[in-house]
Amino acid sequence: MPEVEWLEGGVTAVPGILAAGIHGGIKAGGKPDLALVYSSVPAAAAAVFTTNRIQGAPIKVSREHLKGGAAQAIVASSGNANVATGEQGVEDALEMAQLVAAALRIPVGRVLVASTGIIGQPLPMEKIRAALPKLVKALSPQGSRHAAEGIMTTDPHPKEAALRVEIGGRPITLGGIAKGAGMVHPRMATMLCFLATDLAIAQDALQAALRRAVAGSFNRISVDGDRSTSDTVFALANGLAENRPVRRGGRGFRAFQQALETLAQRLALMLVRDGEGATRIVEVQVRGARSRRDAEVAARAIANSLLVKTALAGEDPNWGRVIAALGASGAAVEEDRVALWFGDEQVVAGGRLREGALRERMKAELAKKEVLIQVDLGLGHARDRIWTCDLTEEYVKINTRYS
Amino acid sequence: MPEVEWLEGGVTAVPGILAAGIHGGIKAGGKPDLALVYSSVPAAAAAVFTTNRIQGAPIKVSREHLKGGAAQAIVASSGNANVATGEQGVEDALEMAQLVAAALRIPVGRVLVASTGIIGQPLPMEKIRAALPKLVKALSPQGSRHAAEGIMTTDPHPKEAALRVEIGGRPITLGGIAKGAGMVHPRMATMLCFLATDLAIAQDALQAALRRAVAGSFNRISVDGDRSTSDTVFALANGLAENRPVRRGGRGFRAFQQALETLAQRLALMLVRDGEGATRIVEVQVRGARSRRDAEVAARAIANSLLVKTALAGEDPNWGRVIAALGASGAAVEEDRVALWFGDEQVVAGGRLREGALRERMKAELAKKEVLIQVDLGLGHARDRIWTCDLTEEYVKINTRYS
Repeated sequence: MPEVEWLEGGVTAVPGILAAGIHGGIKAGGKPDLALVYSSVPAAAAAVFTTNRIQGAPIKVSREHLKGGAAQAIVASSGNANVATGEQGVEDALEMAQLVAAALRIPVGRVLVASTGIIGQPLPMEKIRAALPKLVKALSPQGSRHAAEGIMTTDPHPKEAALRVEIGGRPITLGGIAKGAGMVHPRMATMLCFLATDLAIAQDALQAALRRAVAGSFNRISVDGDRSTSDTVFALANGLAENRPVRRGGRGFRAFQQALETLAQRLALMLVRDGEGATRIVEVQVRGARSRRDAEVAARAIANSLLVKTALAGEDPNWGRVIAALGASGAAVEEDRVALWFGDEQVVAGGRLREGALRERMKAELAKKEVLIQVDLGLGHARDRIWTCDLTEEYVKINTRYS
Repeated sequence: MPEVEWLEGGVTAVPGILAAGIHGGIKAGGKPDLALVYSSVPAAAAAVFTTNRIQGAPIKVSREHLKGGAAQAIVASSGNANVATGEQGVEDALEMAQLVAAALRIPVGRVLVASTGIIGQPLPMEKIRAALPKLVKALSPQGSRHAAEGIMTTDPHPKEAALRVEIGGRPITLGGIAKGAGMVHPRMATMLCFLATDLAIAQDALQAALRRAVAGSFNRISVDGDRSTSDTVFALANGLAENRPVRRGGRGFRAFQQALETLAQRLALMLVRDGEGATRIVEVQVRGARSRRDAEVAARAIANSLLVKTALAGEDPNWGRVIAALGASGAAVEEDRVALWFGDEQVVAGGRLREGALRERMKAELAKKEVLIQVDLGLGHARDRIWTCDLTEEYVKINTRYS
């Protein structure tokens, strides 16, 4: 790992990046619901989208615009996802890009679009039309937090992070904002994340680095097992650091990829911490698996088990539920080889309660705000990890009356 | 479908079947926690067990005893699942069979065993040893309900059903008891079900009929996506109807298989209705799928989505969540071909809100105690259906403090 220095300022910590967030009339109560991230110069652009077969209209428009490989602005709305809205939805997403492009005097193909919120309702375009010029005027080099607020739905807190890392002898800045909350899951969530850097990097290298960073961060978290139609991670690299452009597999690529993953991971953990109703963050590590795939499915099965997650909410050392989830995961499991730890306390050895394991110590481990569950399958050398949160009555309360 | 007549009396409606349920000291508060089903003559025996890779000790013992193809008794305990208990667990399960066999004066190999409850604790064998002779003494031809109570964990109600059907010109009785509640899921749940009939049938035919009946009933319900280590369905056929024995594929087989499935389905729906914290039962039908597998995964994805299930608890017609779950299911989906109904009210046509769909009418459909969600994928002719329940704060409350 290259050494990183954490910075204030989120996405606007990056030279040449401005941002804004305002209330445009989508959400009730005057909360910010429009966000803009802008690079003062054209940037290499990369994206990772949801794997859901039904995808929001903004994703369709952004995919088109990404074909050029460059972008200069990301416009986003919250409160309405513009999904399952047919042709009108695509026209509306395109119009958002057009209006922002006109106000910024850049080609429409350099504007990416994202939306999050309720599915199946047309966007209130009259209000959005009136608000977008104001959004552009609000752009500021300290605008990261406002933009982070502008993409929130049920998130309790705005999420932003930035870091500096040395690549090829130069200090490079990376920053980003994200939103998550409900529907956070394996292989993307209702999750938006906009990353930026001043690194000069070839577009295909940026795309490769982003794909790997997402695999190690947003695709390793889980709140409730649902996958959204709107998940989007964008990355802009504007080259203002004036380094010799980084190429795929070339010098500096690995350092950048790792720094990008580190940043994405920090934002991903903020998402888990803010999971709807969550009171603690839980890291599930599985090792000793026969294959990487087995390690992954075992870790996901534990992280997604409602019975495990509700037990965690109650700080209840009901380790049998972990064992049951493991057995149901589909991974190769031999009962008498399974070992399990809550934090540092070994609970299970050889598939059964370890002699001398103390319930009080298990409870103490589960009472922590950051809980570690480790499983050793004793069958091989593969490992994986997934972050999740507990499941409380509050989650159900939030989601019982949403629309 | 053969015509069936529903009967009172549960499993003991079947000639030659006696049952009992008593408190043996496993559960606190004097509730029944031991159950026994007994056939006055040896019966052909069949079973379907959990697909969880970690399986309870009683399953290991029952598998051995089933090799003989015949059984005469099923002994079950609740409150403790005897899972992840190592060699001692297997010895304890075997001892339960031995004690029952001795009291009934039958070979130990004719006793099947099942347990449900907390994982990882040794059975309180001293108490069970003292109680099993009392359990045998309590056997009665009206004992079905007591036995149904003896296998309950968090189930609010005991579950029993019986029916009469004509097979090969003779009236045949089928009866059963079941327990479910938490962890009810695709491909078996913490779910015990003991079925019996007076039909004379070859053992392999009974096994084939049972496997199909389970596929169409218990494997088509879902409460919370977890699969238990203890799921067991047993079937005993004691032949007291003195019909010419039914053979696989022979005369009467299909009628029996359908009657068995009808009985199992009624018990399965009782399980869903009693899902932890559930306030309504939901049938998810998917048709127009490209393949049967696609229909199944799509229906399961909707039935298992926490966001769908919490919306149902709130009678919230948030159909976008159904669409999102569908898209995430992995089934082939083309957005503009999707149609969706809540009850009789068509909500989505061509992938978007149907013109004229009324929110108030959607809400009225979701307010029912039995909700129907229908999806037409518009891609083929395959169909499937899954029954589930809503997810309420009560579910979380029950599962936050269990052990």
